[in-house]
Amino acid sequence: MTLSFWFDFASTYSYPAAMRIEQLARERAVPLSWNAFLLSRIFRAQGWDDSPFNLYPVKGRYMWRDLERICEAQRLPFRRPSQFPRNGLLAARIACRFSKETWIPAFVRAVYHANFAEDQDIADRSVIANCLRSVNQDAESGLEAATSAETKIILREQTERAVDLGIFGAPSFIAGQELFWGNDRLEQALMWCQRR
Amino acid sequence: MTLSFWFDFASTYSYPAAMRIEQLARERAVPLSWNAFLLSRIFRAQGWDDSPFNLYPVKGRYMWRDLERICEAQRLPFRRPSQFPRNGLLAARIACRFSKETWIPAFVRAVYHANFAEDQDIADRSVIANCLRSVNQDAESGLEAATSAETKIILREQTERAVDLGIFGAPSFIAGQELFWGNDRLEQALMWCQRR
Repeated sequence: MTLSFWFDFASTYSYPAAMRIEQLARERAVPLSWNAFLLSRIFRAQGWDDSPFNLYPVKGRYMWRDLERICEAQRLPFRRPSQFPRNGLLAARIACRFSKETWIPAFVRAVYHANFAEDQDIADRSVIANCLRSVNQDAESGLEAATSAETKIILREQTERAVDLGIFGAPSFIAGQELFWGNDRLEQALMWCQRR
Repeated sequence: MTLSFWFDFASTYSYPAAMRIEQLARERAVPLSWNAFLLSRIFRAQGWDDSPFNLYPVKGRYMWRDLERICEAQRLPFRRPSQFPRNGLLAARIACRFSKETWIPAFVRAVYHANFAEDQDIADRSVIANCLRSVNQDAESGLEAATSAETKIILREQTERAVDLGIFGAPSFIAGQELFWGNDRLEQALMWCQRR
């Protein structure tokens, strides 16, 4: 059974999930699918015009400390982004357009690394160009494909599919009919795939 | 280092935490303190007049399924309460007033069991009287102490202390200066106590 990984490039807890999911899935022989979507669109439909971590500062304060502890335990580099949430639209379009390419997992990790370890602005074309180059892809053609009308539709439909699947946060994992939400549910989601 | 366990009797994820915390802490030789508080007061201060699981039905739908899976894995009986959230004020007053008594952990578990395994209304005096009797306490004097002016103040101050500690949800765990939120952070919080 394939595990569908749903992630948003601005989402903090998607960072540790994205960095470890491929290895964990491989160890358990669970096939993965990579599904970028735009959480901000789902938030907006709920009446939030910003991340709940900004709207509810007490929760936000906790999240940053919690994330720091998680990264420490996972030995992941972490630098709190000077801007949050960052606009992950461009990266999400590329991840959607090329979702089945073998270089996508490494590209996704490169974008998360830029945002959460290097404090780089992933809305910036040159940052994403570097991420593409780091996985041996041609930056210009990748960026061009990302801004095509066709790609915009793919991402919009992917986000609509997330809503249809009951997704309301990121990271989310779908195993068959089961939805799991949060980095801390990754192992459980993988187990669900293995048992079936 | 003592682990402070902060719980709300209406809170769904506090149920599996309350049922397993004493044994886990004992195995790790971590002393526990039991701190009931009223999450609804904190929610109200954030502008919510109901549980976020009711205000955001998609999130609520997920939570019930997630809780069901957790209870199944933990072999905990679970029946979705026909009313949610239930009013845990009376039980919280008793848990606050007698927080250091040896029977409190068992009383807390009895209340959670009534709410989440038996679908009983824990706002009902007779339900709480049964919980008191199940831990060999005199029901009448327990209920009487719960409604005293002094006890009301204790619970109010305890809830204010929760806010001061940065608590915004339940269950929460405090180990020294560190806050951990959620049933799935219990092991990590215990480990924090053991390392110090």
